[in-house]
Amino acid sequence: MKIHPDCVPCLLKRCLYEANLVDEDKENEVITSALSILDENFEEGAVSAEVSTEVHKKVYQILGTNDPYSEVKKKSNEAAEKLLPKVEKIANKGFKETVLVSIAGNVLDFGYRDDIGSPEYLLKEFENIIDQGLAQDDTKEIEKILEKGKEVVYFTDNVGEIVFDTLLLKRLKDYEVHLTVVVKEEPILTDATMEDALKYNIDEIADQLETTGGYAVGVNFDSLSVKVKEKLERADLIIAKGMANWESFSETDYSPIAFLTRSKCQPVSDTMGVPYDENVAKLFQ
Amino acid sequence: MKIHPDCVPCLLKRCLYEANLVDEDKENEVITSALSILDENFEEGAVSAEVSTEVHKKVYQILGTNDPYSEVKKKSNEAAEKLLPKVEKIANKGFKETVLVSIAGNVLDFGYRDDIGSPEYLLKEFENIIDQGLAQDDTKEIEKILEKGKEVVYFTDNVGEIVFDTLLLKRLKDYEVHLTVVVKEEPILTDATMEDALKYNIDEIADQLETTGGYAVGVNFDSLSVKVKEKLERADLIIAKGMANWESFSETDYSPIAFLTRSKCQPVSDTMGVPYDENVAKLFQ
Repeated sequence: MKIHPDCVPCLLKRCLYEANLVDEDKENEVITSALSILDENFEEGAVSAEVSTEVHKKVYQILGTNDPYSEVKKKSNEAAEKLLPKVEKIANKGFKETVLVSIAGNVLDFGYRDDIGSPEYLLKEFENIIDQGLAQDDTKEIEKILEKGKEVVYFTDNVGEIVFDTLLLKRLKDYEVHLTVVVKEEPILTDATMEDALKYNIDEIADQLETTGGYAVGVNFDSLSVKVKEKLERADLIIAKGMANWESFSETDYSPIAFLTRSKCQPVSDTMGVPYDENVAKLFQ
Repeated sequence: MKIHPDCVPCLLKRCLYEANLVDEDKENEVITSALSILDENFEEGAVSAEVSTEVHKKVYQILGTNDPYSEVKKKSNEAAEKLLPKVEKIANKGFKETVLVSIAGNVLDFGYRDDIGSPEYLLKEFENIIDQGLAQDDTKEIEKILEKGKEVVYFTDNVGEIVFDTLLLKRLKDYEVHLTVVVKEEPILTDATMEDALKYNIDEIADQLETTGGYAVGVNFDSLSVKVKEKLERADLIIAKGMANWESFSETDYSPIAFLTRSKCQPVSDTMGVPYDENVAKLFQ
């Protein structure tokens, strides 16, 4: 996805959120550096995920941490665990419902909007989110591919969300596919890493567990290992969770890809061609 | 008020709001220029109103208009006129209540927050805003000054709001004071200009009607005419409506000043020493 002007204030707000999580006194330094990088890198046609990777990299460096979200991420996993019995009940109904709960988990992405994203928000609003159903529902087409396919590669997004992902991963294994799950190599925003994947036994559910190989919002394809790249090329289905994966994969020719996400911002919703602030399962063939 | 890091994303959002009011295709140019000015001018200790004046000046130039808000401003005045009978009833109760309604009108300040500020918001939420009362209530002290004072200077803020201001201006004239009202010389954001003041007969209510003499968020004291400056120096009471006037006057030694505003942002609330998102009437002696 190309960067949209709206991404700029949103990104800056998120940087300030990070400063507040770690050291409020560094807000001035954070905003000064972020402005400088954006002034240099914002241009029509720049890739949003690449620009934001540069900005966050600098902010993490200023804050002297490789994971400003470490404490709040724990709360996300806790909230998701708390909801798990309820979530399992819904997921048991079928494939579509399992996709839906995994998308509901995608709201756990705090720092960029005041109104949503916190673990408390998920706990409070979970049933409303589920009641909204899928505003874009390509689950039937996704199932068709799964019935015939052999290789599935699944890119995760946030912590907390990954707890619900395990249910979808198990269901994917009901089809006769080889399932590769890819988590983040290094902590970035609220994204799940190997630590989270192992915590929730994804190494046992999936046939193969890999990482993105580097530090990036979404995926930096230059950091991906050769074996993950080969998987992507051969995959009968790629499943990409969350908006940052859309921002990255929409710049590639990999297909078919099913994007499973909450459409939490207007530029992502517009470029994806889905309504704003809804649960969407959109397949690009 | 010194600029706060939080001002940066807020200011950029407002610039994009302006672009959307006039010409959506100019969003990229607007954000690029705004980023460049902010990268150059954001530093600890810079005055928020001065930085935002520079940014908006450039955006207006790119958009090729001296008043991007002209259409929406009309709606603010219409909403305020619609509420006027209800507002008059409340204002009739006393000085404090008249101050309160004039502050309620201060929510009419759209473009910087998604949740509040529109004429529709005011129409829907007016009674709730009034029910909140004054979270900071220095109206008794203000009245004491009015009882003894002779010279009062009143700086207005937004259109729409100015309709409610007329009620407070009339009440100020119940005290034996010489009342000078100062509106914006040139359109800036949603602020009232001479056109609005004359539309609502403020020239007949006040003893003197002046302008700020230039283009600025809040007040650029270098643009103020000598006669307004003299008024400020001699004033027994200055009344300044809205946040931008706080941003400007808090950098001066003028006193006593009563700030009447809705505390719509955290940096203003913090520097003023009042709770966030409340009606406040705070006197600095």
